Amino acid sequence: MIVSLNGVMISDQDSSISIYDRGFTLGDGIFETIRAENHEPKFFDHHMLRMRKSAKFLNIPFNITNAAIYKTITELMNVNQLQSAVIRITLSRGKGTRGLVPPTHQSPTLLLTSVQLATNTAPANVIISKKTRRNECSPLSRIKTLSYLDNIIARQEAETEQSDDALLLNTQGRLADSTICNLFVITDNCIITPSEEEGALPGITRQQLMKEYNIKAQSLTVEKLMESKEAFLTNSLGIRPLVSVDGNPIGSGQTGQKTKSIMKYFQTT
Amino acid sequence: MIVSLNGVMISDQDSSISIYDRGFTLGDGIFETIRAENHEPKFFDHHMLRMRKSAKFLNIPFNITNAAIYKTITELMNVNQLQSAVIRITLSRGKGTRGLVPPTHQSPTLLLTSVQLATNTAPANVIISKKTRRNECSPLSRIKTLSYLDNIIARQEAETEQSDDALLLNTQGRLADSTICNLFVITDNCIITPSEEEGALPGITRQQLMKEYNIKAQSLTVEKLMESKEAFLTNSLGIRPLVSVDGNPIGSGQTGQKTKSIMKYFQTT
Repeated sequence: MIVSLNGVMISDQDSSISIYDRGFTLGDGIFETIRAENHEPKFFDHHMLRMRKSAKFLNIPFNITNAAIYKTITELMNVNQLQSAVIRITLSRGKGTRGLVPPTHQSPTLLLTSVQLATNTAPANVIISKKTRRNECSPLSRIKTLSYLDNIIARQEAETEQSDDALLLNTQGRLADSTICNLFVITDNCIITPSEEEGALPGITRQQLMKEYNIKAQSLTVEKLMESKEAFLTNSLGIRPLVSVDGNPIGSGQTGQKTKSIMKYFQTT
Repeated sequence: MIVSLNGVMISDQDSSISIYDRGFTLGDGIFETIRAENHEPKFFDHHMLRMRKSAKFLNIPFNITNAAIYKTITELMNVNQLQSAVIRITLSRGKGTRGLVPPTHQSPTLLLTSVQLATNTAPANVIISKKTRRNECSPLSRIKTLSYLDNIIARQEAETEQSDDALLLNTQGRLADSTICNLFVITDNCIITPSEEEGALPGITRQQLMKEYNIKAQSLTVEKLMESKEAFLTNSLGIRPLVSVDGNPIGSGQTGQKTKSIMKYFQTT
């Protein structure tokens, strides 16, 4: 596969990063995962807006234009002969010396990779992580950072329990999201998704659905989830019905009608 | 500088890691910082014990013997002509494909670096971070992981306020530690340090002092810190008096007598 590393198209076999890159030594950076179909990255401007906001918050220079990144994505897909792809854009703070303080002159690392798009829309059976919790008291809960280890241990926990994913509670014991998805529940008269204040990542698909279906973010208890009619998970790659939690069915334990209609809407976006 | 990368001694200029290394893409790994004096790493067995415990928890294979790592450290110091050094051992999960689930066959990355030891024992003026909090609800608060970004943003906050470091509150608003140090306070009749349950990293120097001075870990409020006679910060590189917090003096605002005596004890270990 060809990747783009700091503006250079290069074979992934020949590309590497410094052992002093703070992305590697300290998880000091951010990333975006973008779905691309028919040679076109979806919701590109939204992803870039979020990424630039995150880079600004972390004070990581990000001086490449959206147009240049868009061009790189289409070039990558062409050279890798991908019509549909998952694009990952990784921005780390670049090389640093020992310690936490960033260097005065930062030279960030920008990596773009592409792999064949493969979306999983099968009904998901999940657990609620007992091992860890989302820290809604940290602004990083609202940023897709390279410091992703809490999600990994929750995902490992799900693997151990032969489950598809793990939901994360926040430190107050209310629902935040899953290791890679936002969470939505459908009750009798409304759709609910946990708010950013509760520790939910401001997902791009989440944002689109909230607008389209006039969904208000709020706090969400496990009880409310378990009493809901339907539930589903979203990320930039797609929507997945959520049919059971810790072995207990949500609603009928099958993909619900409303979820199906929302999945159809998503496929047309 | 010469470093050791996966068992090979190599110039840092020639060494690099894969763009797919999960240390880089997901902060999926751990590290230790070890003080070495007179060609000898200090509390080596304690560091290795903690590192192996962390690797086991995260399910990262770590099959190199302590003897082999010790030998590498002394070789590194020799070849880099360092009598005293800061050794950093980084263990990442190694290469992975897209997604959070670790590969079936893990091939971790092990990196050892050394730089000249420089300890800062000057009295520290710190802030309490307003930007983020330590997540004591995550087991990662007790592990030195590569997902270190919460510490970085708190340290950046300290830099902005021209302060030496930032203390982190846990999600309950009690003290945990600083971005790179454990915290100790001295009251009339005892020494207190926040417990691991409160979000404190189980530091090696902390562990030594707790044993030597019969210190019990417990919860610690900001009020108690501000009423204390003396306070100090510890990590594997040394002990630093803590003389003010958010511009308010601790005790006399000078390095206290008890702190001086503990610093002396540390110098002899």
